[in-house]
This record gives sequence, structure tokens and C-alpha cells, in this order.
Amino acid sequence: MLRYSIIGTGAIGGFFGGRLARAGRTVRFLLHSDYEHVLQHGLRVDSCDGDFVLPEVEAYGRAEDMPESDVVLVGLKSVKNHDVLPRLLRPLLHEQTTVVLIQNGIGLEEDLQRIFPQLHIVAGLAFICCAKTGPGHICHQDYGSLNLGNFSCPEARFQALLADLQAAGLTAAEVPYLEARWKKAVWNMPFNGMTVALNTSTAQLLQTPATRALIYDQMMEVIGAARALGVEALTSEFADKMMAMTDKMTPYSPSMKLDFDNGRPMEIEYLYTRPIAEARKAGFEMPKLAMLEAELRFKEAVTADKSRRQ
Amino acid sequence: MLRYSIIGTGAIGGFFGGRLARAGRTVRFLLHSDYEHVLQHGLRVDSCDGDFVLPEVEAYGRAEDMPESDVVLVGLKSVKNHDVLPRLLRPLLHEQTTVVLIQNGIGLEEDLQRIFPQLHIVAGLAFICCAKTGPGHICHQDYGSLNLGNFSCPEARFQALLADLQAAGLTAAEVPYLEARWKKAVWNMPFNGMTVALNTSTAQLLQTPATRALIYDQMMEVIGAARALGVEALTSEFADKMMAMTDKMTPYSPSMKLDFDNGRPMEIEYLYTRPIAEARKAGFEMPKLAMLEAELRFKEAVTADKSRRQ
Repeated sequence: MLRYSIIGTGAIGGFFGGRLARAGRTVRFLLHSDYEHVLQHGLRVDSCDGDFVLPEVEAYGRAEDMPESDVVLVGLKSVKNHDVLPRLLRPLLHEQTTVVLIQNGIGLEEDLQRIFPQLHIVAGLAFICCAKTGPGHICHQDYGSLNLGNFSCPEARFQALLADLQAAGLTAAEVPYLEARWKKAVWNMPFNGMTVALNTSTAQLLQTPATRALIYDQMMEVIGAARALGVEALTSEFADKMMAMTDKMTPYSPSMKLDFDNGRPMEIEYLYTRPIAEARKAGFEMPKLAMLEAELRFKEAVTADKSRRQ
Repeated sequence: MLRYSIIGTGAIGGFFGGRLARAGRTVRFLLHSDYEHVLQHGLRVDSCDGDFVLPEVEAYGRAEDMPESDVVLVGLKSVKNHDVLPRLLRPLLHEQTTVVLIQNGIGLEEDLQRIFPQLHIVAGLAFICCAKTGPGHICHQDYGSLNLGNFSCPEARFQALLADLQAAGLTAAEVPYLEARWKKAVWNMPFNGMTVALNTSTAQLLQTPATRALIYDQMMEVIGAARALGVEALTSEFADKMMAMTDKMTPYSPSMKLDFDNGRPMEIEYLYTRPIAEARKAGFEMPKLAMLEAELRFKEAVTADKSRRQ
């Protein structure tokens, strides 16, 4: 059985870490604002698959106090990947540690590998509706699978990780790394930014004919970029599927919209700047998503300006 | 001396009509909300070139009551060109009437010509800072020239009109029709829409590096479109010039921003939809301005939805 650490015990880290701990795995949780609460009261997960409480969990307030682990699940916002993540990771690593980045965007694994050239890195793609509704309190509404794309992990260790997650009762599967990252971007890039740019919901964007067509164009830009980078399995059919899926969803605020509305930094770098740059290197332009990036950078600058003045 | 009618006695129509009347020309003003006021008090123009009052002007409340004129200056918002303008024009036309469209956008002359195949049409490009600040009260702050581009006017009549405007003391010059229309679009298309989309000013768009680059890209889309349509005189130098000019301007709200903020319809059709369609016919795509059009259509739909609910 593998020993786990969780960096970023929000909705995602709390849910998957909680499920692993319930299954008997050693799980160390790194906590920030919730540290005292979780130390005293443990972790509570209200789940569509059955509620559970872990009255005692291994809670830590500082990464320096945590022991080395075999697997580190990272649920941090990617805005912290440059400054904060390397510092938090360092104490947790032994020579064979696998780090799973359960984050959105393109280029996350490449950047982390540059800092830790020997590290075993895996992309984690969570398909789940869940939220942290209070200190140490996770609400899981729907889905719950964790797909893994192998970026730089020796095959045997990768398969051992997959098997251990499955043995712990999680729905986990292997997916092709680059294809999986870009597939998520097909939905993420149009909807995260456009709900911020136009201060609206996924549903309203799809109800208005002009923005419905724009969202589809943007999805096709992502698919074009992915294909230019060699992901040939991704075709326009996937855009059709994402449109149909979103039509059926209840009106939804993507994570970037929640971040912006709550004054938190937006994940512009890994959701826009990096994929647009990667595509450009392969000779493919994404003009409408590049324009969206500029609009988001403008909103970011205005917000920064406002908070400086306060 | 030519006899004039003014349709749309706002800032532009009021200023040029007022100047022509002051110079002794016969000028008939069609008025809507200001009719009673102007009938009683005349027209007042506070101008950087010298204030003047016209205590009595030929004011009309209905186009049907107006006599035929040699020249009709149209200062209406282009959102009225389909439904309202043909109806207002019809009573004013004799066989040789010249209609000058002092409006922004691309495709205005083509559309009007389709309705009046024999009409002599001229594009009017006003370079002026002026505003209507009260009933029958125009404030003219700066500039004041009226350039004319001949769309379908017999050369002799066109030159006679130009000479008459100059004889009346106006700064008027002939410009190449298509080039002049597209040159204005180089500034108008980026700044009108972007100030609405991001609820900001020209200055703030240029201060933020991401939107500064975006504005320049959008200007280059307009220039690319114009060149695809045969306007070879328009090069990237003109975009550089427009950027430098805007840097020097005091922070400014373009007309579309004022329209949107005041709940009036936006001129999306002739400022975006038509030029984008014209360019596409010539095989040239304007992706960032097409995205801006979609965002403006979305804002328009949300506004319409709100006012329906009230």
C-alpha cells in the first residue's frame, strides 16, 4: 500500500484524500486556513456515494513537518505552481515519489519537471462535481473519477499507483497524457474565460446565438491546436459532444468565474498563455482565445489596480 | 446656391446645418424631440470657432411636410437606416438630390442604393468633436472638417456640392470613397466595441499591455480587410498613427460606449457585421473583430432581455 500526501486540501484534494484515508491508506494532509479545525474535528465528506467522517486525520500545518511520501496529490490552484509548489513539494519527496498534478491547463508537468528533473510526474484529470463548503467539509454532488496521464513516471510505478487507487475503491483509469490534457482544455478554455469576460453563465452563453457560435469556434481552435501538436484523436465530434453536454448541464459557474468573483487570482497562465504559446510553436494560431486571454489580463489588471487603491 | 435638408439634427447635423444656415443657405431641419423648442428658440451653437445663435430656423416635425432639397445631410444613427431612413428621405428627393451619409461604418451607401437605385449618394466623414448638450443646443469643442467620398454622384454635381460647402465657409475636401470609409474603421472598430466589452475607456485599453497589443491586432485586421478589398493605400503605418493619436487624446468614450451606457441601440450592424462580411467575401477573415461582434451581440441580447423584464 502506498503512502500519500495531499497538497491543497480543498474540494479535490479533500475528496480524493478522504476516500483514500477511509480505505485505510496512510494520507497526510497539508492544510492552511483549515489546519486547526481539521486537527480537532477531522474531515467530513458529504457524498452522493455515501457520507462519511474521518474524526482523526494526519493534519499538518507546514510541509517541512511532513514525512516523505510515495505519492503526492496536488490540488493547489496552478497560480501557485511557480512560487509555492516547489517549496511545499521538496520535503515530501524521496527518490521514487510520484507527484500527481490534479490541476487544469497545459504545460504544468513540463514546468515542474524543469524544476525537478528526476521527479516522476503524472497528470491527474478529475471528473467530479464537488466543493468545499466549510472548514474540513467537502460536498460531493456528482461523478468522481480520476484519470491519470503518465508524463514521466516509470511504467511499473505508474501501474502500481493506478492499481492502488482502484484497490482503495476509486474510479481511476489511464488516459493518454497529451490527449487528456487537451480534451479538458476544449471545455475549459472557452467557458472559463467567457463567463468572466461577459460576467455570465455557461447557459446564457449558449442561449445567445452569437456567443454560442463563438464558443464553438473557440472549441475548434483548441482542437486545431491539439491536432497541430499531434493529438489526432481529437476531432470536431468532441466539440459537438461538449456543446451537447453543456446544454444539458444546470447553469454553471466555472472555477475561473468563481475565482474572479471572489477576488482570487485567475489561472490565466496555464489555461490560456501556455496552450496558446505551445500551439504557436507548432505553427497554429488561436486568435479568438488569444483575444480572450487579453481580455482576462485586462480584468486582472483592473482588479489589481482597484485593490492597490484600497 | 444649393438648398439643404438635415435629417437627424443631433450634434453633427446641428453643427453642419447650423453653419450652412449661418452662411445664408436654405436649410430645413427635421427635428423630433427638439421640434417645439427649436421652432420657438432657434438653434444655438457654442463653437471653438466662434459662438452663434440662429433665432429662426426652418424647423419641421415631419418629413412629409418638408419640400424637396438639392442636398440631404443624414446625421441619424445607422441603426435607423433600414426602417426609418427610407421613409424620411422619400419626400425630400427630387431627381437630382444628393444624399450625404455622415455616419460611421461600412456598407451604408450600398444598402441605401439598393432601396433608391437612382439616388446620388455621397459618404460624409466628419472629423469633429461636438455634442448636443440640450434641446437645439450644440457644443463644438474641436476640429470640424467634413470630407466627402463620392459613391454614386455624377462628378459635376459632386464638385458643385463640394464648392458650395467650401463657399459656405466649411472645411470640406474630397477623399477616395472606399479608402476613407475603411480608414475611419481602423479606429472605430477596435475602440467602439472594446470600450463596451470591457466597460472602460480608450486610455485604459492602451495602458494595459495585453489590450494595447489586442487593439493593434484588431487595427491590423481592419487594414488587412481593406487591402483585400483593394484599398492598397492603407498600410500598417496608419495603425501606428492611430495608436499614437489615441495615446495623446484625453480619455474618451466612443459613441457606441455612450449609446450602450445610455440604453440606446448600438451600431453593431454597420460597424461590425457588414465590414466582417465584406472582408469574408474577399477571402479575408477578421477573427478578433468577429469575436468582438459576438460579445457585443451578447451584451445587446442581455440588455434587451432586461428591458423586456422591466
